[in-house]
Amino acid sequence: MNISILGTGIVAQVFAKALLAKGHQVQLGTRDAKASLARTEKGMSGETLSSFLQANPLVKLGSFQESAAFGEIIVNATNGAGSIAALELAQEKNLNDKILIDIANPLDFSKGMPPTLFIVNDNSLGEEIQKRFPKLKVVKTLNTMSCEVMVDPARVRGDHTAFVSGNDASAKAQVTNYLVIWFGWKPTNIIDVGNISTARGTEQLLPLWIRLFGAFQHANFNFHIAK
Amino acid sequence: MNISILGTGIVAQVFAKALLAKGHQVQLGTRDAKASLARTEKGMSGETLSSFLQANPLVKLGSFQESAAFGEIIVNATNGAGSIAALELAQEKNLNDKILIDIANPLDFSKGMPPTLFIVNDNSLGEEIQKRFPKLKVVKTLNTMSCEVMVDPARVRGDHTAFVSGNDASAKAQVTNYLVIWFGWKPTNIIDVGNISTARGTEQLLPLWIRLFGAFQHANFNFHIAK
Repeated sequence: MNISILGTGIVAQVFAKALLAKGHQVQLGTRDAKASLARTEKGMSGETLSSFLQANPLVKLGSFQESAAFGEIIVNATNGAGSIAALELAQEKNLNDKILIDIANPLDFSKGMPPTLFIVNDNSLGEEIQKRFPKLKVVKTLNTMSCEVMVDPARVRGDHTAFVSGNDASAKAQVTNYLVIWFGWKPTNIIDVGNISTARGTEQLLPLWIRLFGAFQHANFNFHIAK
Repeated sequence: MNISILGTGIVAQVFAKALLAKGHQVQLGTRDAKASLARTEKGMSGETLSSFLQANPLVKLGSFQESAAFGEIIVNATNGAGSIAALELAQEKNLNDKILIDIANPLDFSKGMPPTLFIVNDNSLGEEIQKRFPKLKVVKTLNTMSCEVMVDPARVRGDHTAFVSGNDASAKAQVTNYLVIWFGWKPTNIIDVGNISTARGTEQLLPLWIRLFGAFQHANFNFHIAK
C-alpha cells in the first residue's frame, strides 16, 4: 500500500520504519525537501533526516503535495502547530476523500515547559482539520502515547488503549483494522469514542501524559480504560 | 476521625456513606442547611437530601463553616463552579492548615452537553483553591472517576489509577494512605503526579471521561496508566 506521512520528525520516522517493515511503500512529505535534507541539527530521533534516509533508503521524501498525491492513505505526523498549513500545501486535490490518520496534537511550546494546548476545551485540532477539509476522512487516533508505543504496543505491559475519533464510521473501522494488522493492536484495546469532536477528549490527555513522562522519566506507558 | 464533606450532592452522599461505614464521624456542609433540607427535587442519587439524611441518621448536616470547623480533614465535594465560594463561606480560620481532599472538577454546563471546563489549559481548579487558601494543604485526587468508583475501586475490573497532585508531600502521603485504608485502593495504583499544577492534567481527563460515559452508558470504568 502507498502511504503518505506528512512530517519528517521522529514520529514520522518511527511510523515510516514500522510501515516499511510491513512491506508498504512510504513517502514522507515536507515543505521543502532540499531544505529538510540540508538540516544538520539532529532531531529527537538522534539523527538528521538525511542520515535517517541513508539508513532507510526505501523511505521516499517529497513535498507535502507529492507525498499526499502518492498516498492511498495519509498520516498527519506534522507538529500540530503546522498541521493545517501542511495540509493546505498538500492541496485538496491530493487529499480528496482519502483517510487522514491524524496523530498530531495542538501542543504550544511557546510559553515554556510543560506545553499547553493552542486549541482546547470547546474545539480540537482534529475538528479544525475536518472543518478545513470537509471531504477528507479524518480519523484521530494514537495521539495519546509516544510514537514508539503507537507502532509497538507490546512495549507497554498489559492491556492499554488506542482511542479512535471520526465522523466516518467505515473510515474508523478501516483505521482500526490497520492498527491491528500494521502494529499488532488488540482489537479489544481499541475504543471508538465517537465523532471527530471527541478528539477534544483525547487531545486533552496530553497535559497529563507530559507530566507522567516527567514523573516516570520514560515514555513506555499508556492510558488504559479499565472497566 | 471527624471528616468534613463540603457539598450535599451525590458525590458528598456517596463519600459520607463510605466514611461512616469505616467508623468515621461525618458532617456535610452546605450554604444554608434549612434550604437544602427543604429541597424537594431529587438529585442524581435518586433521593432528596432530607430522605438521604433520614436513611443515614449518623450523617450530620451544617453550614460550610460548621462543617469545616468540625472536620480534622475536609473533602471538597461541591460542584466546581461553587468550590471557591463554599470555601470562602467555610472561612479561613476553620480551614487553616488542614488537608483539603479536592475531588471537584471545573465543569461548565452552561453551554450545553457535554460540558466544557471553565478553568483549563494553563490553570486548574486545584491551583485556584491553593492560591486563594495558601495555608490549606490541597490534595487533588479521585476527580477522574465516578464517585462510586472513588470509594469502591473494586467496581472496576483489574488495575486502575488514582492520581494525586499537591504541593505538600506529607499531605499527599497521608491522603494516599487514606485511599488505601478507607476505600481499599491498591498502593501501586496510586500515582503521585507532582505539585498542584499537575491538577491541570487530571482535570483535563474529564472531557474524555464524559464522552466514554456516553459511549459505554455506565460509569464503572476508570483510567489506568499501563507501563
